[in-house]
Amino acid sequence: MQIARRTSDIRPFHVMEILARAQALEREGRDVVHMEVGEPDFPTPPWVVEAALAAIQGGGVKYTPAAGLPELREAIAAYYGQRYGVRVEPRRVFVTPGASGGFLLALGLSVEPGAGVALADPGYPCYANFVRLFDGVPHLVPVDAADRFHLSWERVSHYWGGGMRGVVVASPANPTGTLIEPGVLRELIGFVQERGGFVVSDEIYHGLEYGAASPTALEFSDEVCVVNSFSKYFGMTGWRVGWVVVPEGLVAAAERLAQNIFISTAMPSQVAALAAFAEENIRELERRRGLFRERRDFLWAGLQELGFGIPARPEGAFYIYADCGPFSRDSQDFARSLLEETGVALTPGLDFGKHRPEGFVRLCYTAPLARLAEGLARIGGFVRGGPGG
Amino acid sequence: MQIARRTSDIRPFHVMEILARAQALEREGRDVVHMEVGEPDFPTPPWVVEAALAAIQGGGVKYTPAAGLPELREAIAAYYGQRYGVRVEPRRVFVTPGASGGFLLALGLSVEPGAGVALADPGYPCYANFVRLFDGVPHLVPVDAADRFHLSWERVSHYWGGGMRGVVVASPANPTGTLIEPGVLRELIGFVQERGGFVVSDEIYHGLEYGAASPTALEFSDEVCVVNSFSKYFGMTGWRVGWVVVPEGLVAAAERLAQNIFISTAMPSQVAALAAFAEENIRELERRRGLFRERRDFLWAGLQELGFGIPARPEGAFYIYADCGPFSRDSQDFARSLLEETGVALTPGLDFGKHRPEGFVRLCYTAPLARLAEGLARIGGFVRGGPGG
Ligand SMILES: Cc1ncc(COP(=O)(O)O)c(C=O)c1O
Ligand SMILES: Cc1ncc(COP(=O)(O)O)c(C=O)c1O
Repeated sequence: MQIARRTSDIRPFHVMEILARAQALEREGRDVVHMEVGEPDFPTPPWVVEAALAAIQGGGVKYTPAAGLPELREAIAAYYGQRYGVRVEPRRVFVTPGASGGFLLALGLSVEPGAGVALADPGYPCYANFVRLFDGVPHLVPVDAADRFHLSWERVSHYWGGGMRGVVVASPANPTGTLIEPGVLRELIGFVQERGGFVVSDEIYHGLEYGAASPTALEFSDEVCVVNSFSKYFGMTGWRVGWVVVPEGLVAAAERLAQNIFISTAMPSQVAALAAFAEENIRELERRRGLFRERRDFLWAGLQELGFGIPARPEGAFYIYADCGPFSRDSQDFARSLLEETGVALTPGLDFGKHRPEGFVRLCYTAPLARLAEGLARIGGFVRGGPGG
Repeated sequence: MQIARRTSDIRPFHVMEILARAQALEREGRDVVHMEVGEPDFPTPPWVVEAALAAIQGGGVKYTPAAGLPELREAIAAYYGQRYGVRVEPRRVFVTPGASGGFLLALGLSVEPGAGVALADPGYPCYANFVRLFDGVPHLVPVDAADRFHLSWERVSHYWGGGMRGVVVASPANPTGTLIEPGVLRELIGFVQERGGFVVSDEIYHGLEYGAASPTALEFSDEVCVVNSFSKYFGMTGWRVGWVVVPEGLVAAAERLAQNIFISTAMPSQVAALAAFAEENIRELERRRGLFRERRDFLWAGLQELGFGIPARPEGAFYIYADCGPFSRDSQDFARSLLEETGVALTPGLDFGKHRPEGFVRLCYTAPLARLAEGLARIGGFVRGGPGG
């Protein structure tokens, strides 16, 4: 069988190589500090677990409506009212297998073959690959610390024209943890919409902000797709449940597409997700947010002390994108050597785009403070005593 | 936002309209016999439930490897050895969110924009829509009782050429419940492969056969994609877990695609699925298969007695595709009137293609015998006394 061209354009993630090597080292008995994995270390909160257990008992686990359990769609819609003061009709909410499923819907609905889509570089690598899946053309727009690593209408305008049809924005961002300024987001949405383009806003790290909270793109326009998930703030990665809010005009098409490509999202996961909105659970999530903030502060200060550059203060998610230029000319080489010599795993910039990836590494603070301290101490020894130190 | 052209080509399912109306009647207090839903009525077996409960307790529900839990991939690979005597390397097995997710992988890997894909008409409607999702061109090949409603190399050869690139085969089939003859399948695979085309075999109804069991397409070639699922024989629809076996040459690309579009399949569902292979569970599933056979025999005899034509004996799945020509010129009108007047819900042929859909309705025997008897009695009253009776 021959492979469709779109697939050969999809590159493997370097973090997988790092992860595989880290696991091999662990099998050899080495202690590895994992700072490469973008997944909260906390377990699923007990109220959520309880709800899932109750749903499964008795075995009545059946297909749900394609768009999701009506109660869950209503709870998500209500969350937009509570959190952002934005009115969202439940019919615009589609429950999906993670934000990943949300991108399948949002981009399947928007990307024509050959259509250009603007993406921030560095950025989450899957955006470009979802665009390729639908035979669109990802346009990586270099962004820097001066932009807080975010797209703006000015940046995008240099690339507009020539088949450009839409944009994916994400704040807080992976890998930088930076937030886009609300005014910049509003203007970017305006710019793209005036040109008849589409906007998909990835809000998966909403809730994990350590200063001001982010506005949703829905505060600026109803004509955008907003993708979100229970994976990160709600700490439910392995359940695979997320959602997308679509404009009213896309509701019928989203319904048809979801019926065909998902039939439905896993029922136990949907029932679990519904429990995630309970007050006591949100209290626990806010406590966890406090812990993430402590970790961020600790790692941010510690890395700078060691001489890493962190050109834009990370205000959200659980990532720090650190300039390792003072220690190495090649971040991939840096990451590999660091892992071999000290057992600290992190992700080279190469996974996030083409804009100076050799200068950066991403560190995740998805491990307890004590482990981060251990990691930092090992990195310190490495950069002081190691090859480029 | 504008909608990508591919999406406007995806038509809504008529069964959704029937289902919605049936539920509305139920809310009004009417008793409805559901013969429209392609979902086993049995609960998830207790061993599977227990495994899921144990996996969830404590909340360690995390992303799994993109291709699935290694133990589950191994168990699925081993199943091919036990059931079919075919050797499958675990690395060729990708766990997916249902067979639906398997089609996203298999067709995302195979369908180039503009590529023609041959599909049996009548057939499962999502095949054509998956092809459209990847901007391919579904070619509906009319099949009849003389072919047991299956594709053959002769049938397909009339359509080959002109950009035709592949074929989806499915046996036992939805909506007809018929099996393809092993020799016909083998020759079809040979025909397509000689022309450099791809073959995807949907084996989701394997295990639900009431005479001879079906061979897997992997018995005839390693160079095919085989899609299967825990939804039907294993009775686990709402868990959303299935798999696809890909040729060795597609393993790396499937891995990359799965990492990007799924990250992973729901972890509780994967652990549940692993328990599905336990001996005692298979015994229970075989008992259920016996019940399905009884229902098939009952409904098959009953419908013929009433005067429906059933031109090809249904040997698998849980569907009967019945010719309602003796009672109506329009199966959609027949289905609607039947529901309104008697509260029996079934699916008009229109959902399954363009080849004489007005002449057929699909009935599911996913309800206990007593309910099927009730349904049959009501249908009897309708066709004897009703509009066309
Ligand atoms: C920026 C971003 N968007 C989307 C996702 C997809 O997450 P999920 O499918 O688990 O909701 C991730 C996962 O790491 C991410 O980092
Ligand atoms: C023929 C056929 N294939 C595939 C599917 C998809 O099933 P699932 O995604 O639940 O595995 C169905 C569901 O009804 C079906 O009838």
